[in-house]
Amino acid sequence: MSSAAAGPVFTLATGPVGSTPATQAALAQPVLHHTDPAFRALYAETVALLRESFGTSADPVIFPGEAVVGIEAAAAALIGPDDVLLNVVSGIYGKAFGQLARRFAREVIEVETAYNASIAPAEVGDALARRADITLVAVVHCETPSGTMNDLDAIAEITARSGALLIVDAVSSFGGMPTDFEQWNGIAITAPQKCLGGTPGLSLLHVSDDAWRHIAANPNAPRGSALSIEGWRDVRQPDRPFPFTPSVSDVYGLRSCLQQYLAEGPANAFRRHRQAAGAVRAGVPALGLHLWAADDAIRSDTMTAIEMPDGVDEAEVRAVARAESGVMLAGGQGALRGRVLQIGHMGPAAYPMSPVIGLTALGHALRRLGAKADVGAAVEAALAASGKSTA
Amino acid sequence: MSSAAAGPVFTLATGPVGSTPATQAALAQPVLHHTDPAFRALYAETVALLRESFGTSADPVIFPGEAVVGIEAAAAALIGPDDVLLNVVSGIYGKAFGQLARRFAREVIEVETAYNASIAPAEVGDALARRADITLVAVVHCETPSGTMNDLDAIAEITARSGALLIVDAVSSFGGMPTDFEQWNGIAITAPQKCLGGTPGLSLLHVSDDAWRHIAANPNAPRGSALSIEGWRDVRQPDRPFPFTPSVSDVYGLRSCLQQYLAEGPANAFRRHRQAAGAVRAGVPALGLHLWAADDAIRSDTMTAIEMPDGVDEAEVRAVARAESGVMLAGGQGALRGRVLQIGHMGPAAYPMSPVIGLTALGHALRRLGAKADVGAAVEAALAASGKSTA
Amino acid sequence: MSSAAAGPVFTLATGPVGSTPATQAALAQPVLHHTDPAFRALYAETVALLRESFGTSADPVIFPGEAVVGIEAAAAALIGPDDVLLNVVSGIYGKAFGQLARRFAREVIEVETAYNASIAPAEVGDALARRADITLVAVVHCETPSGTMNDLDAIAEITARSGALLIVDAVSSFGGMPTDFEQWNGIAITAPQKCLGGTPGLSLLHVSDDAWRHIAANPNAPRGSALSIEGWRDVRQPDRPFPFTPSVSDVYGLRSCLQQYLAEGPANAFRRHRQAAGAVRAGVPALGLHLWAADDAIRSDTMTAIEMPDGVDEAEVRAVARAESGVMLAGGQGALRGRVLQIGHMGPAAYPMSPVIGLTALGHALRRLGAKADVGAAVEAALAASGKSTA
Amino acid sequence: MSSAAAGPVFTLATGPVGSTPATQAALAQPVLHHTDPAFRALYAETVALLRESFGTSADPVIFPGEAVVGIEAAAAALIGPDDVLLNVVSGIYGKAFGQLARRFAREVIEVETAYNASIAPAEVGDALARRADITLVAVVHCETPSGTMNDLDAIAEITARSGALLIVDAVSSFGGMPTDFEQWNGIAITAPQKCLGGTPGLSLLHVSDDAWRHIAANPNAPRGSALSIEGWRDVRQPDRPFPFTPSVSDVYGLRSCLQQYLAEGPANAFRRHRQAAGAVRAGVPALGLHLWAADDAIRSDTMTAIEMPDGVDEAEVRAVARAESGVMLAGGQGALRGRVLQIGHMGPAAYPMSPVIGLTALGHALRRLGAKADVGAAVEAALAASGKSTA
Repeated sequence: MSSAAAGPVFTLATGPVGSTPATQAALAQPVLHHTDPAFRALYAETVALLRESFGTSADPVIFPGEAVVGIEAAAAALIGPDDVLLNVVSGIYGKAFGQLARRFAREVIEVETAYNASIAPAEVGDALARRADITLVAVVHCETPSGTMNDLDAIAEITARSGALLIVDAVSSFGGMPTDFEQWNGIAITAPQKCLGGTPGLSLLHVSDDAWRHIAANPNAPRGSALSIEGWRDVRQPDRPFPFTPSVSDVYGLRSCLQQYLAEGPANAFRRHRQAAGAVRAGVPALGLHLWAADDAIRSDTMTAIEMPDGVDEAEVRAVARAESGVMLAGGQGALRGRVLQIGHMGPAAYPMSPVIGLTALGHALRRLGAKADVGAAVEAALAASGKSTA
Repeated sequence: MSSAAAGPVFTLATGPVGSTPATQAALAQPVLHHTDPAFRALYAETVALLRESFGTSADPVIFPGEAVVGIEAAAAALIGPDDVLLNVVSGIYGKAFGQLARRFAREVIEVETAYNASIAPAEVGDALARRADITLVAVVHCETPSGTMNDLDAIAEITARSGALLIVDAVSSFGGMPTDFEQWNGIAITAPQKCLGGTPGLSLLHVSDDAWRHIAANPNAPRGSALSIEGWRDVRQPDRPFPFTPSVSDVYGLRSCLQQYLAEGPANAFRRHRQAAGAVRAGVPALGLHLWAADDAIRSDTMTAIEMPDGVDEAEVRAVARAESGVMLAGGQGALRGRVLQIGHMGPAAYPMSPVIGLTALGHALRRLGAKADVGAAVEAALAASGKSTA
Repeated sequence: MSSAAAGPVFTLATGPVGSTPATQAALAQPVLHHTDPAFRALYAETVALLRESFGTSADPVIFPGEAVVGIEAAAAALIGPDDVLLNVVSGIYGKAFGQLARRFAREVIEVETAYNASIAPAEVGDALARRADITLVAVVHCETPSGTMNDLDAIAEITARSGALLIVDAVSSFGGMPTDFEQWNGIAITAPQKCLGGTPGLSLLHVSDDAWRHIAANPNAPRGSALSIEGWRDVRQPDRPFPFTPSVSDVYGLRSCLQQYLAEGPANAFRRHRQAAGAVRAGVPALGLHLWAADDAIRSDTMTAIEMPDGVDEAEVRAVARAESGVMLAGGQGALRGRVLQIGHMGPAAYPMSPVIGLTALGHALRRLGAKADVGAAVEAALAASGKSTA
Repeated sequence: MSSAAAGPVFTLATGPVGSTPATQAALAQPVLHHTDPAFRALYAETVALLRESFGTSADPVIFPGEAVVGIEAAAAALIGPDDVLLNVVSGIYGKAFGQLARRFAREVIEVETAYNASIAPAEVGDALARRADITLVAVVHCETPSGTMNDLDAIAEITARSGALLIVDAVSSFGGMPTDFEQWNGIAITAPQKCLGGTPGLSLLHVSDDAWRHIAANPNAPRGSALSIEGWRDVRQPDRPFPFTPSVSDVYGLRSCLQQYLAEGPANAFRRHRQAAGAVRAGVPALGLHLWAADDAIRSDTMTAIEMPDGVDEAEVRAVARAESGVMLAGGQGALRGRVLQIGHMGPAAYPMSPVIGLTALGHALRRLGAKADVGAAVEAALAASGKSTA
């Protein structure tokens, strides 16, 4: 909580990413009973807004449980004992998904690349060609710890040709960069606390008709369980009971976030993320640091991963930035722990001043820890990039 | 959402039960990152407040997932393939637990009574005596659909003598009536959206040391999964990462609810529930209806189950009460569907005027549907009972 | 503030009258600088919504200062040293206005009636006929302490024929009953904290073109002062500076209240007030009490004044109702102090259950103080009246 | 209102100055009736907190009306037809007070200095020596448009020796810099929307016993009027009626602001303002601009006035800063219009990152308008100054 004493907290992390006043006002609404007609109407409206935001023709699923829960539920539902799954690994999140998938699949095959790179779609094609029995392909759209993107459109096209279904982790891309869930046949999972600026506690799923059929045919798919996504299909229908009480406040918050997203317009939202990303990417080298992702073409517009200088622990940098500048950065994940942190510029954290705030706090913290950082140059570079990106 | 046009919604249901202004203000706080030091401090403080509210010496578990999820997680954790579980059934919720337990247990044995009665503790003793291999006993403290209580203190004592552990569903009793989690050796599960007046989305668990040991010895207990309660043990320690992002807003709300509960004091909270219950119980016969629970001694102070007259569908009654009086009642559950509804008087819904509001709305709805209801007499009886109970 | 312990506070008073969740959410928005373009847009939108709500062609004035301040400012502006003012007195508020007017006017003439009656429009006509030099006529539309209405449409027509201008106190009528500001030539004053359900702190004024001219010609009208209404004319124009910083939060609240009012529709709002009034008026005699206003035709739909039985102090009744039932009634004004209290049913306090809540709390308090009250009969009468009024 | 699209608005102005989440939550509380016991308790608590914050022994007055209204009311109360007032003028606000005082005083004498300087206390002494009939001395503690301070402690001592009373405008100093109201015998006026981070709509007055006596002896002091401060004396006593309905929401907000202020501690608050001021003052020359105030010793810690380069209109600079960076600066006042703007660092706007945000937005806007600005150097200078000031 911020106070006058502490000033505001700037959450430039990778989710949750803060919240707008409109979202907070929505969260403060009275907690209705979940069968109250006012809540049922709110829920149905939220599903409709989410479908419009997804750009899909089928109703999405609002699954109670943070993104990690939604990904587990999706995996448990889709991956059956006969499935051979190709797992595309370009980072920590992809790697972790493989471990999860092994619980359910007959076999998990992986294609892997360095964690500062992306998978070439052709590698996916080669893998599918080698193993015609692959039924599912899992891809992380945006590898948050690395700040990198996989080319989902190309991978989806290749996968579609093979007849396999996709499981896409679009958690930290949806809402900040284009996502074509309708064409990515299978399941895509995202969440409110990223580019939408909502609360953690829900997963937002697109499930294609083919995916629903695959789930129906999976004898091991969770049913009558907290992890069953089938139970939450079609619950926007007033006569369909919820499997259990949904998170009333989170739904209020989600509706508000979706309204804000649609009022802004996806194209404008994407541009806003791109501008913030451009400014941060310009500022990092000027600060004297290295961008983690190998290539600008694969850098995410929703966060920027930054390599720390030798001898500087990213956890300490983040602690100083938070304590002295009120800026919350992200980092500390898996194999990149200690070396790579992220400036998030997602959802409500992607605004004109956020790159300057993030870079200044980062530079200040580096200096406190004895490293060099040219903050002035970084701010100038960020401003120059913003000038360009708005032109 | 209420508006000036519609007036307030009186949520006299069995959870969620509305929310106080203080709780709503807490929900409106900015969505912090879950690793932010301010959130870590908030979380640790919330765990401490919950332990104080539970009256236990061990830290409770704040499990992300509504009560139904928490019950499934507790069952999956505690009930192993070697366990023989005695399931005590006095209502719909107890019956459902038996089905869940069969997924995990070697064997489930049941003692059962009519759904408007409670289990005599001696029956539990008899069952334990018959089967010395019983390792776990499951009991619903308050059977919400029936509005009835089981005598947990007595059952816990008997169970303790046998060496078995308890699984107690205290979801709709904790905070409104005494619960002695420290003495009920095993796991007790409750939730914020009942007598605490919080949001649905979390489960609140007491797990005794013996229960933690039993879980550790269960080879099938979920681990590395959304359903793992072990992952959420001790996460109030600043150096322990959360298994995944907790529901930031729900934790804000929970802290506020616990602060309000402790400021009022449990004894005062129990008295407030008892007074509301007394008024409703007095009003129902005066209205011309029958209380569902067979005996006053087993009636819950947190809700009152009411039998509808022949030919009157409780769902229709509730619809009219909501549409014309703005009063949301509960009902429609399992075998009691159509026949029995509940007036909830839980948490923020247990206040001096709530019995009058509930009885009037109920009586008005019955008349609209062609049944008789003496609303004036019911209000008078409720007032008379309140007078007595405050004396 | 309500808490779980105390339950909600039912504000059935004569302003402030509580607030809806939507209004409260509006009040929680960040406090912008008053010259911020977002605030200027908010202000201009609020003026437009108020004009629409007033049903007038000219822009209204949002004057910073509670209704009493706005009435003083309006009197000071309109009443000049050459003015002869006819003051229509049918209650405490009208009487007080005469005292205020004497500070500014050459002469104040009064027509007066009993405080449980209304002025016959013909009496106004007679007075105007007797004194052709009357330039201003002051009327309280709804006499709050008495719960009575003056027939403003008739008085306005008579006044218009004489060429005089009106000063109308429409504080507790606007938004709950029809008000024809466009036809009532002069100044009409109302406020947000009555039938709109807003915050106290602003006055809302309609000033006709003739009234603006009269003000401009008044040498003593406050100018360059906190009491100058001229300074707040046209400040919705972006290039016009505010005389001083307006109440940012109150404007947020007002916009929300006006949006809610217009979304409901004035006709629906009036019907809602009429229904609540009808139920309370039916319930009072059933309770065994007397309505203060002599005649149903002059009773306000926004509050009901009730005479206490001999020996019962209304202040004590209100104290018990608040302490034991959480119901805040109004009363304690001037000559009626001790004898007459009011149940308010204004704005968000006019909803289906509010008459039952008010009558029950009143009856309960009377009994506590040793008086008789047939609460059951009162509730039945209120329900019966509601049935009629919705038919 | 900010939205995800627009990002947050940084209000670095001279009041209102934004609001903390805690303050906003307080504003969202239900609008109670002003005679409700809960509101009376809230009001009394707020008066006590304000007295503690003022560091005075007498109860302060919470006067309904923005600071400009409170200053007019204080002047009207204190300045009688026999009073000779010495007006100390070092800026636009002091000059304006002289015009106001002439309405009430027998005579107004002025000592004046350049608007980028402060009055030497000795000049006040000389004036008092010249005219032994001076009964009142008016001083603006912090001249907001100029960002300059007058030495009130010295002036108060000199004034006390002469037996005159003070009228102190402490609106934009209280809460950000030391104010010794107990020693400044007379009236001091401040407001919530400055260093406390509250809403505009209230004035906060300290009135010494001598000042109350002076008011009582003033035959022209407003009585029975919206401008009467006497009516609001002692209204924290439960048996004293409010002259009219106070601004319920503003009082909620004020209580919260005072709680935050006292929790932080005045000394810490002053240090926080001093650090922000130091960083901005270091950054302005580095940006290539001139500080308006002639001398560091007289610069306010609550805002910094900055002279624009020739040919650059401060209004245009502010418009660009708001539109492109979301930063709201202040300016546009009186004789300084067009030439001087202010970066506010008051209350919740005085935090570690606010100088960087303000300087960057200012520099960016200057460039857009064709002027030079070394943003990088300014940020570096601000960081360097922060380093020093925390040392």
